[in-house]
Amino acid sequence: MQTALNSSNQISAALIHDLKQLRKTSPLIHNITNYVAMSVVANVLLALGASPLMAHAPEELAEINKIANALVLNIGTLDQDWINSMRSAQQLALKNKLPIILDPVGSGATQLRTNTVKDFLQQGVTLIRGNSSEILSLVDASFITKGVDSTLSSDLALSAAKLIAKQYQCIVVISGATDWIVDQQQIVTQKHGSPWFTKATAMGCSVSAVIAAFTAINSNYFQAALNAMITFSIAGELAEKSAKGPGSFVVNLLDELFLLEPHHFQQLKIENYNDEFEKNL
Amino acid sequence: MQTALNSSNQISAALIHDLKQLRKTSPLIHNITNYVAMSVVANVLLALGASPLMAHAPEELAEINKIANALVLNIGTLDQDWINSMRSAQQLALKNKLPIILDPVGSGATQLRTNTVKDFLQQGVTLIRGNSSEILSLVDASFITKGVDSTLSSDLALSAAKLIAKQYQCIVVISGATDWIVDQQQIVTQKHGSPWFTKATAMGCSVSAVIAAFTAINSNYFQAALNAMITFSIAGELAEKSAKGPGSFVVNLLDELFLLEPHHFQQLKIENYNDEFEKNL
Amino acid sequence: MQTALNSSNQISAALIHDLKQLRKTSPLIHNITNYVAMSVVANVLLALGASPLMAHAPEELAEINKIANALVLNIGTLDQDWINSMRSAQQLALKNKLPIILDPVGSGATQLRTNTVKDFLQQGVTLIRGNSSEILSLVDASFITKGVDSTLSSDLALSAAKLIAKQYQCIVVISGATDWIVDQQQIVTQKHGSPWFTKATAMGCSVSAVIAAFTAINSNYFQAALNAMITFSIAGELAEKSAKGPGSFVVNLLDELFLLEPHHFQQLKIENYNDEFEKNL
Repeated sequence: MQTALNSSNQISAALIHDLKQLRKTSPLIHNITNYVAMSVVANVLLALGASPLMAHAPEELAEINKIANALVLNIGTLDQDWINSMRSAQQLALKNKLPIILDPVGSGATQLRTNTVKDFLQQGVTLIRGNSSEILSLVDASFITKGVDSTLSSDLALSAAKLIAKQYQCIVVISGATDWIVDQQQIVTQKHGSPWFTKATAMGCSVSAVIAAFTAINSNYFQAALNAMITFSIAGELAEKSAKGPGSFVVNLLDELFLLEPHHFQQLKIENYNDEFEKNL
Repeated sequence: MQTALNSSNQISAALIHDLKQLRKTSPLIHNITNYVAMSVVANVLLALGASPLMAHAPEELAEINKIANALVLNIGTLDQDWINSMRSAQQLALKNKLPIILDPVGSGATQLRTNTVKDFLQQGVTLIRGNSSEILSLVDASFITKGVDSTLSSDLALSAAKLIAKQYQCIVVISGATDWIVDQQQIVTQKHGSPWFTKATAMGCSVSAVIAAFTAINSNYFQAALNAMITFSIAGELAEKSAKGPGSFVVNLLDELFLLEPHHFQQLKIENYNDEFEKNL
Repeated sequence: MQTALNSSNQISAALIHDLKQLRKTSPLIHNITNYVAMSVVANVLLALGASPLMAHAPEELAEINKIANALVLNIGTLDQDWINSMRSAQQLALKNKLPIILDPVGSGATQLRTNTVKDFLQQGVTLIRGNSSEILSLVDASFITKGVDSTLSSDLALSAAKLIAKQYQCIVVISGATDWIVDQQQIVTQKHGSPWFTKATAMGCSVSAVIAAFTAINSNYFQAALNAMITFSIAGELAEKSAKGPGSFVVNLLDELFLLEPHHFQQLKIENYNDEFEKNL
């Protein structure tokens, strides 16, 4: 049972606590991720204070599962061998109650991607994070139409997220200019971030790994997801300040993730949609 | 039939037009490329304004081919599985008349590489871009000797390029201190660039992807190739100005690709060798 | 038979000589390495002055072995196919007396990793470089206890290194705040470096590749290893000076590797433990 966070101050205090804890305990995050993102994701996790581990050989997944604190499945450059590895790692993580973060890169672009993601969802994940189109690809068009509520009709992806959260009993994060964190009980948005995130590769993959790192620290996974989205986004805001372009932005982002201090988490741009959610579901 | 560009001003105006168009339409570039280059290539394409897509699973190539605007085949870390994926993607691209850019990384170093490249050339590509030794590896030594013309005898690779352009009916780009763009009708050189390009990895792979992005905008592929070589090279010149070494050079390059403005394309160092070409062929 | 280096000045002069030679001859380093590290390792080798080559296809290993000047085997993202490639490359390198540098990433974390490393050691390597826990994973606990000597009992990994050096007749490098270079005759430490090395990915993988580059220049592999550890560590110290965080540190590191000059190698923090070693073995 998730506990609701009612104020920005509470969220800020909880986040600062968890970030401190993350840096202190350096959780081991097992990533089965795409070739493009591997290096960036590893650097993001290190800068944040976590320990990245990239491994996909079937023979070692059981041992890695025992030492890992969270699992990231990312289908960015999937193929049959890697899908098999991800599937095995997922089963092990489910058995050992390890948080599983799914990044459905390119879902909707091909049947292979969409079906692979749906299969992972059916087996069970803790959280799925994607952009609007990736999230939308996972529900039937007819469901979306039915799911649209009056208050939030502008956002089809949000309706899709609510359906996915209910159908698969997981948390859904839609990232974009506004990030939506959705489960069966609540919806929270956070509006920190930087337009530069769309101009560098693997930024979505990176935030998925950051979510995994925070779920390794706090078993309130909804709060962990919110912590992660805020942390990564605020590091992005700080990185943007001295960025000249997308190259220096990524360099700055790694620096800022490492340098984050409690005072950076004041006056959070977050909103809680619990009431509307329950009313409209 | 390609139309010749006769003046630096014309080329500059055409380039500025296409770059604007590229940024506006953000063409989707499907890359089957090497592990070393993937992340850099993705960042270069994003900084330029294009949309990178890395995918190699045979099951999804047909769908990706339908949404992609150009295809890059890069053999940098080839193996049999990846060759098969590249071959399938090439057939789909040929069928759908998608521009195909081939990067023959390391051709000449091993039979596997040379033969794979020749096979791709035989099937049909729009353009091949390599350095002198890679281009030279694709023709018989006896042909080179015969192909050497009086005016340009210093450059064996150029003779090889002309032969390849004729034999495979494709554009050939030789990159180096001077870049040569060659097809059956014309030869153009451009001399922008930076010595730092040789001190960072995946710079050649990146410019091949940049060519793909410009071919997605302009079906005059010769002009697209010239646009790409100039654009990437001038971004390199700008990056060099504040680079301390190869690390900051690459960061700057991404920044500068993003920041390129029309005024950067004045006084282009290009030369047209049409006359000599026809005379000596 | 290795010749001992007795003074910091001698080591400094030899290192400067070899670095100059490395930049002049640009040795070709064949890497079969992990997906996370490939790009960074390639950039590190280029910045240093070497030529990186990443290739794993079984069909081309024999030809590559003939042109390569050293081989790096790195198991960071191993699987059965890549193990097979590494095994083949190792056999070819042994036959042609090419130096072989083994990086046992994550040895001890899984049986697959530990066993793969032990198998490579049994076949024969020139040098193995890992952190303390990786090196410790390669010996039996009982051997370690017996191997502990009075002078250096605080360092179990060093005892393990001595055993490995003896058992497999190779050089062992333990990297950490202090780097230990160990063979059957001598032990040398060097204490240059930066705490930032632990906050960016593939720094260990990179220094293994740097060792390979120096072994390609100097057949006194012990000295080559020391040269490499000092060179990379001093570049790290210089990088640290203007680094804001781990992002800018890696950028600076590449710049500084390229910019290293003889005067940077004054007053080396090295110690020679030959006497203690022979006394205690």
